[in-house]
Amino acid sequence: MKLIDILRNAKSVAIVGASNRIGRPGYTLMKNLLDGGFEGEIYPVNPREESVLGIKCYPNVSSLPRAPDIVVIAVAAQRVPTIIEECGEKGAKIAVVISAGFSEIGQNELEKTVIDTARKYGIRVLGPNTAGLIYTPTKLFTSIEINPQQGDIAFIAQSGALASIVIEMLARRNLGLSLYIGLGNRADIDEVEAVEAALKDDYTRSIALYLEGFKRGRDLFSRYIQLGAHKPIILILGGKSRAGSRAATSHTASLASDPKIVEAISKQHGICCVDTLSELIDASYAVPRLGPISGRRVCIVTNSGGPSVLATDYIENAGFEIPELPLEVRQALSEILPPMSSLRNPIDMTAEADYEKVFRTLVTLGTSRTCDALVFIFIPTATSPWREVVRAVIDARREYGFNILVYVAGEGSETMVKELQDMDIAVATTLEGIASALRCATVWMQGLRRAQRFQLPS
Amino acid sequence: MKLIDILRNAKSVAIVGASNRIGRPGYTLMKNLLDGGFEGEIYPVNPREESVLGIKCYPNVSSLPRAPDIVVIAVAAQRVPTIIEECGEKGAKIAVVISAGFSEIGQNELEKTVIDTARKYGIRVLGPNTAGLIYTPTKLFTSIEINPQQGDIAFIAQSGALASIVIEMLARRNLGLSLYIGLGNRADIDEVEAVEAALKDDYTRSIALYLEGFKRGRDLFSRYIQLGAHKPIILILGGKSRAGSRAATSHTASLASDPKIVEAISKQHGICCVDTLSELIDASYAVPRLGPISGRRVCIVTNSGGPSVLATDYIENAGFEIPELPLEVRQALSEILPPMSSLRNPIDMTAEADYEKVFRTLVTLGTSRTCDALVFIFIPTATSPWREVVRAVIDARREYGFNILVYVAGEGSETMVKELQDMDIAVATTLEGIASALRCATVWMQGLRRAQRFQLPS
Repeated sequence: MKLIDILRNAKSVAIVGASNRIGRPGYTLMKNLLDGGFEGEIYPVNPREESVLGIKCYPNVSSLPRAPDIVVIAVAAQRVPTIIEECGEKGAKIAVVISAGFSEIGQNELEKTVIDTARKYGIRVLGPNTAGLIYTPTKLFTSIEINPQQGDIAFIAQSGALASIVIEMLARRNLGLSLYIGLGNRADIDEVEAVEAALKDDYTRSIALYLEGFKRGRDLFSRYIQLGAHKPIILILGGKSRAGSRAATSHTASLASDPKIVEAISKQHGICCVDTLSELIDASYAVPRLGPISGRRVCIVTNSGGPSVLATDYIENAGFEIPELPLEVRQALSEILPPMSSLRNPIDMTAEADYEKVFRTLVTLGTSRTCDALVFIFIPTATSPWREVVRAVIDARREYGFNILVYVAGEGSETMVKELQDMDIAVATTLEGIASALRCATVWMQGLRRAQRFQLPS
Repeated sequence: MKLIDILRNAKSVAIVGASNRIGRPGYTLMKNLLDGGFEGEIYPVNPREESVLGIKCYPNVSSLPRAPDIVVIAVAAQRVPTIIEECGEKGAKIAVVISAGFSEIGQNELEKTVIDTARKYGIRVLGPNTAGLIYTPTKLFTSIEINPQQGDIAFIAQSGALASIVIEMLARRNLGLSLYIGLGNRADIDEVEAVEAALKDDYTRSIALYLEGFKRGRDLFSRYIQLGAHKPIILILGGKSRAGSRAATSHTASLASDPKIVEAISKQHGICCVDTLSELIDASYAVPRLGPISGRRVCIVTNSGGPSVLATDYIENAGFEIPELPLEVRQALSEILPPMSSLRNPIDMTAEADYEKVFRTLVTLGTSRTCDALVFIFIPTATSPWREVVRAVIDARREYGFNILVYVAGEGSETMVKELQDMDIAVATTLEGIASALRCATVWMQGLRRAQRFQLPS
């Protein structure tokens, strides 16, 4: 059974190793699942407990009243094969193996036994050494990390701690995940199937990927293109350095590939590599809202000098042009903007930016075919009419539908970010994130074009 | 009179253009100064107002009851020379010219008139086209940007909007500034004098610099070395790209120098260039607490895989080694840490990190002379004993005094960051910021060594 089908249909979860003791993984698993509000059946399994967090506990998987769709396993590694055997006899669909102590510390045989047993019964395995699985549309929070809000980013990662960081960074912006898949050692379910699940999931709009090397890189790329590349994938690759690669081996038994080659091949297939978590989040959120970008010309509109100078540096370094505007566009803008404005590109409206000026400037540029994407950088001063400025951006975007990416910062910007996000406007939260989001939107376009070329006649 | 002496002694401020109308710069200036709690005299100046925000207003500078130390000017550009003349006759020490419309839009003559007039009377000029001047130790908030908390970073910038962003980013971490100097067009006070003021200021421990090119680069470097390079300087250079340089010219009439050359020369003189605001802040906060670093060997201690893999990549890419540990150190660690730990470098203590394990691991590494700096990366799980972990770091650092840099993230990390900051521990808030802070601490060491070599016998 495919991971996506399991996710869509899971109605019961057993937690093997469920515990009432704060600090135990089996406690965190139970607590997260209950806090998240999962509406299916929950079966704690632990021979030493009568009940866990108020829920009737079973001594083992065999004694459960029915087959659980998902079995989460958080007990000592050497006990896992037996539990998988029980799961198989009972008829579970997937084992999410939180337990560590397998190939990442050289216990390859033990890992093989787990997988062989699972295959015998047709059970899928996530992990071992995974931080878990989260699917927010059904409130399925089977992970030892913190619960995310519901959102439309799928985070697929060979790391649980990074999930915690990403979830917290998203929460600060009032954003969340559709899906989290902790790949762990990838003994069965690997990056290809995880990405496929995210591509097919109706609640996911973009995919953020953290890998310490590929298990099946070629298959990942070809599957993405086959499936139409209709959602952007942003990839951050860990273990690129010599010492980092050594660390990745201890962490998830991964062997990193040559990062330069990986990045080049990824790009050819429409998968965008970034360097930092902040870029990963900015791009994952912004790119589906920005839309794929087909050209290299960017127009920048701003109310402030320094931030737009830095943004211009980042954007140009990411391979874009910030062209000077044609005379007719400058003339049109000169009728809209105050005399001290700069009508070169970046267009600096000065501190006098209000609804009228912002709306008309964006529309003039957006309809001029001078640029392939618009960037709007706004730093409210203590007295900026920021509500109307936000409205102007939303109105201009709605009426003319061009690719626009917004950066706001400074006092009060949290509210602005939220209002823009509520209207589904692409927002970047760092100046360098603007450039990453733009770049990833052009990489995505490459994937879409390749998918079109490679599409087989139906 | 030097800027530092003016700052130390300023007891009165006049705001020319002070206004009761929300949205006017003269309103924001008054409000910020009052909100900040400045304890000296405040003189609003505006012929059309009786009082501003409840304070008696004067029709012009000549009619003030005494000479103001600082005159802030926020009126139309063409009126500025006359006001400077009045300030000169009255005996003001410095004019902070917020007004724009000078060399940045080609009005070079007007700017020259302002400076010539000021020189005639020995008045110093900040700007024109500056966002203002802030000195938190005396609650002097004469700027149109938001008020920062008091802190020990001096931010010297050719941009007010960047000050807003930096102030907000710092506030999120409960940090602030000692000093903000908006350089604007640098017609009189330039980066050299501003940096000198910050170096001499007792409340400043590090200097964050945003420049769109140097006015007197050579002087900046030599002055820094002459003065002993005893505080780290972190520089972010705007206008590095072709279009960015064009934008910088419109913004502050700056001409960018070749960024590669600037970065190389800066480094030789102990000034550390970074690319992003987040790195600027991480390094400015962390480097004085981390201390200068004399070697390239970094040991990483962590409780989590993914983040330390990424950090290792960033640190190695920044030119450091993450060496494998000598056998005796590994043996010592094996007696402290649980069996599933990784004793290579990064040292992964696994999720079982507690006071004892963290304290003894840090002390073992810190006293082993195996590494020139220690990095501690901690991502609390829902049930980590994070309070005792924080205490272990603080205790280890206090007892053994080694260079240690901490990164914490995930749920609850805000409190950890604050507790670590309260104990003056170096903290980075992004994984890439770890590498920047380490790198800047080695660059600073180069400056200190150069200063020692170049020190003249007294």
